[in-house]
Amino acid sequence: MQTDNLQNTDLNESKTVLQLREKSSELSQIHLRELLSNPERNRILSILTDSLLFDYSHEKLDSEAVSLLLKLAEEKELLKKFNAMFKGDKINSTEKRRVLHRALRMSRDESLTIDGQDIVKDVHAVLDRVKQFSSDVREGKRTGHTGKKLSTFISIGIGGSYLAGDFVYNSLKSHQTYEKLSEGLELKFLANVCPIDFSRAVKAIDFEQTLFIVISKTFTTAETMLNARNCKQWLLDRYREKYPNLSDKDIESIISKQFVAVSTNIAETDRFGIDKENVFGFWDWVGGRYSVWSAVGALPLSLAFGFEVFQEFLSGGRSIDETIVNCKSTNGIKENIPIMMGLIGFWNTFICGKSTRVILPYSQALCKFPNHVQQLDMESNGKSVSITSNKFVDYQCGPVVFGEPGTNGQHSFYQLIHQGRSLSCEFIGHAKPQFDLKYNNEIVSNHDELMSNFFAQPDALANGKYTEEELQGIPPELAQHKTFKGNNTSFSILLKELNAFTTGQLLAIYEHRVATEGFIYDINSFDQWGVELGKVLANDVRKVLAKNVLGDEETKKFNSATLNLMNFFTENKK
Amino acid sequence: MQTDNLQNTDLNESKTVLQLREKSSELSQIHLRELLSNPERNRILSILTDSLLFDYSHEKLDSEAVSLLLKLAEEKELLKKFNAMFKGDKINSTEKRRVLHRALRMSRDESLTIDGQDIVKDVHAVLDRVKQFSSDVREGKRTGHTGKKLSTFISIGIGGSYLAGDFVYNSLKSHQTYEKLSEGLELKFLANVCPIDFSRAVKAIDFEQTLFIVISKTFTTAETMLNARNCKQWLLDRYREKYPNLSDKDIESIISKQFVAVSTNIAETDRFGIDKENVFGFWDWVGGRYSVWSAVGALPLSLAFGFEVFQEFLSGGRSIDETIVNCKSTNGIKENIPIMMGLIGFWNTFICGKSTRVILPYSQALCKFPNHVQQLDMESNGKSVSITSNKFVDYQCGPVVFGEPGTNGQHSFYQLIHQGRSLSCEFIGHAKPQFDLKYNNEIVSNHDELMSNFFAQPDALANGKYTEEELQGIPPELAQHKTFKGNNTSFSILLKELNAFTTGQLLAIYEHRVATEGFIYDINSFDQWGVELGKVLANDVRKVLAKNVLGDEETKKFNSATLNLMNFFTENKK
Repeated sequence: MQTDNLQNTDLNESKTVLQLREKSSELSQIHLRELLSNPERNRILSILTDSLLFDYSHEKLDSEAVSLLLKLAEEKELLKKFNAMFKGDKINSTEKRRVLHRALRMSRDESLTIDGQDIVKDVHAVLDRVKQFSSDVREGKRTGHTGKKLSTFISIGIGGSYLAGDFVYNSLKSHQTYEKLSEGLELKFLANVCPIDFSRAVKAIDFEQTLFIVISKTFTTAETMLNARNCKQWLLDRYREKYPNLSDKDIESIISKQFVAVSTNIAETDRFGIDKENVFGFWDWVGGRYSVWSAVGALPLSLAFGFEVFQEFLSGGRSIDETIVNCKSTNGIKENIPIMMGLIGFWNTFICGKSTRVILPYSQALCKFPNHVQQLDMESNGKSVSITSNKFVDYQCGPVVFGEPGTNGQHSFYQLIHQGRSLSCEFIGHAKPQFDLKYNNEIVSNHDELMSNFFAQPDALANGKYTEEELQGIPPELAQHKTFKGNNTSFSILLKELNAFTTGQLLAIYEHRVATEGFIYDINSFDQWGVELGKVLANDVRKVLAKNVLGDEETKKFNSATLNLMNFFTENKK
Repeated sequence: MQTDNLQNTDLNESKTVLQLREKSSELSQIHLRELLSNPERNRILSILTDSLLFDYSHEKLDSEAVSLLLKLAEEKELLKKFNAMFKGDKINSTEKRRVLHRALRMSRDESLTIDGQDIVKDVHAVLDRVKQFSSDVREGKRTGHTGKKLSTFISIGIGGSYLAGDFVYNSLKSHQTYEKLSEGLELKFLANVCPIDFSRAVKAIDFEQTLFIVISKTFTTAETMLNARNCKQWLLDRYREKYPNLSDKDIESIISKQFVAVSTNIAETDRFGIDKENVFGFWDWVGGRYSVWSAVGALPLSLAFGFEVFQEFLSGGRSIDETIVNCKSTNGIKENIPIMMGLIGFWNTFICGKSTRVILPYSQALCKFPNHVQQLDMESNGKSVSITSNKFVDYQCGPVVFGEPGTNGQHSFYQLIHQGRSLSCEFIGHAKPQFDLKYNNEIVSNHDELMSNFFAQPDALANGKYTEEELQGIPPELAQHKTFKGNNTSFSILLKELNAFTTGQLLAIYEHRVATEGFIYDINSFDQWGVELGKVLANDVRKVLAKNVLGDEETKKFNSATLNLMNFFTENKK
């Protein structure tokens, strides 16, 4: 199988895809500046809701192209696929699992019966426990071993148990309402197994006031469990330092009061010493990269801000789910933001051949959003096998995703977007600042200054600067250096404000957008077999490094280059 | 000029490039696993120095391909171009500037005469002032207005005045030696004009103990100057709150004692109220993205760690410069890390068509390195115009760059690299941990656990898992889902340790690597015209937002879509 065992799926055979390609080639003859000069076209290419404006007029699209995308949506049965997901079909067929993160944000008065069990009830039972637990901690009813208030929360988890939580925490922590709710409290994340991440996490914290939250579905994730064991050891050492005569009962109390877990593996949490009542569960139908909606996110975020804020976040997600549940026809898709975003994403990646997507939030609060979407998107759609035929597809699927907040990105990599390669740009902003800053003598507030760039960049990318008139006065040898060809496409999401509700909306939009694209590509967006091989090989290396000598049986597994690197390592590590 | 005004430069015409393409097509028939099974080949594809091992055996290369790349190096006169750069030719011809960041790291006993002036003397004169100033602050000889020790340093700057400083600070701050040197001190960065960045920067700091460092070559950078004015106002407000009867002289003293500048515009720093003796200069031959070697980096980093640490960093950079200065022949290039890395980069991007480069440091200390390289690379080589002909080239130049520390990345986007798209992977690690962490009952230390992954991933990517034997026992419907085609290429840089010296080496390696690629592409890696248009348009938007009403003269400049967004904004921003 060294040569690709390719199998045509219908995507490249689809007449609609052919028409889309023709349309793209037709549109490539028209400069985006010209398209944007048509107000009627622009009006059509946007969706306005109660809480946000989604504008995709800066994409290389017209109403005909949109119609073709809607036709594709119909052919690929997107609404039917979402319906299958929402009702609990095992659409993650390679792992024989349902994909039900939507159930995590359903309201208490709804129900969804799976195998005779109303899982919405189960969800709210855990949420109720999170509510109780977090309010007990916040009110000082639950304390550390020595009775001090727990005020530092260290969330130990990696990947899906880390990225979204960090994004949401950053999205909310400087908002003037939530900042008050988290006064005197701090949430820190410990993800990487690198010892430096550990040293930074426990730096300058009061060990008697620290609660550790260990997040791992299986409670066997190598990085997380090593970090958790280190934190336990570190905590006990600090206690022993200060209170030299700790009894076994004290030690038990320390762990039971200052360690909680989010996991489904009660046997392992128990062995770790965590009280059963301090273990918050979730379900095999919650994928890691969607788990922030479960106790994985609920627990740390409710500790930091209070459970009500997390509820708002859930409501935001739910409001987006409902737009899909209520979308009954292809015509409805035109008003549906996540599905339209998915179609636009497919257009850019598959039809127009842009292999990279760049997320550009004009808000420092969203600084971790690109990092989370990077996982959400690349881990979901970085695949190559059809879920229908189980054979390799003959096309590339999801794109590379990266991003940085504007204006920082402008002073970093925008050069390449303006005059180098063609990327898909996704601008995100909010009208109301989370924190207003304007001194009297300034022309505009900081937020207005920031947003001046949010409005300017999509036009600069699209319109460019290339006519003789525009280049007038520029010496000929500089003319092309100073030319902007324009024609660079983007869309913009402008929220009314950035709060817990719209943070939930934004995340759910991107989740369903990624699912939409996966449905079109006919891949399984919900597994991640690609992470397995590295884990296996790391186990082999670990055995060698543990022995600290090379040359024996295990080293036969490695090629000479890797052995050479490992030799250099062991020689120099002390 | 809507249609590209293309002009062939010699790159696509080069016989060597043709041969490289043929070679690449020949190598595409051989699986990387097979190439790696040849120890002789592997031995050739690595460079060992006193401080590091650079291994590129996991690239799709053999000795013939390397010879062709060296031939290209000769044709493109790389050594001659480096020489021109080092001796101060105005190779940044579009801005009529020299490119002399190398001079910033030359030692005191060297000299480089430019326009009759020994600029190495100038460099060391500023460094001497930085040394004096930083040690005065660190020793408490220079204090804040009320005589308190200055212990929080807020570095205000964006892009080139921010990213590298943040990278170096993170690279060093948890090292057990430097951590002691910075005990009780904190360096914070304020880059983004977003009000949230400001609120986070000034949060929980003691205003009487804070020194603000304003970094802007021209002292007119919009974001930086607004942030600087805000900090000034904020500081004075805090003082007025605590000491209601501030005199004009007090105000003057506050600014003069707690604000310093790194800039070349004395008129503007003076107007801001900064003492001339607290302004640290640099030169027009220092590009923003190379300025960390000047007072831009020297001042904040010396304040944080002491000047000696910064000197070590300079020495590291110098040691890499010297490898190029001492490289006299094409054969020497084979032992030269930055130039070889540049050739490999060109091979991957141009010959093999990989448009994305991913930086994967297995060290949390290097968490900001990908962010800096993102700027360094994308702002330098995200260009399309020949520096020789001043016409558009008919090929794409520098790639997209992103990255995250392993193991975090493994739990995020590695799925796509293993089973999705083909990217250029760059692994970085260090043998000796900065901070050792191993509790008795663990099999390996955290650092060994981390490095198990560093060694495992390149092999997992290269070797894959696809033979019948390897897939044995996997049900047929899962076989392709669990197949790893392998053949994914990477290189590895393994440092003996990560300290100030090797941090300087790593940075200088990447700088010269980017220059190497720019020289091959025949573009100007040292200008950044692509950032201009956005700035101009932002000025237009700012005028509209300042008036807070739409509909008047200025709005005619905008298309209906952008007006619609701006309307939504002004309606909802309060």
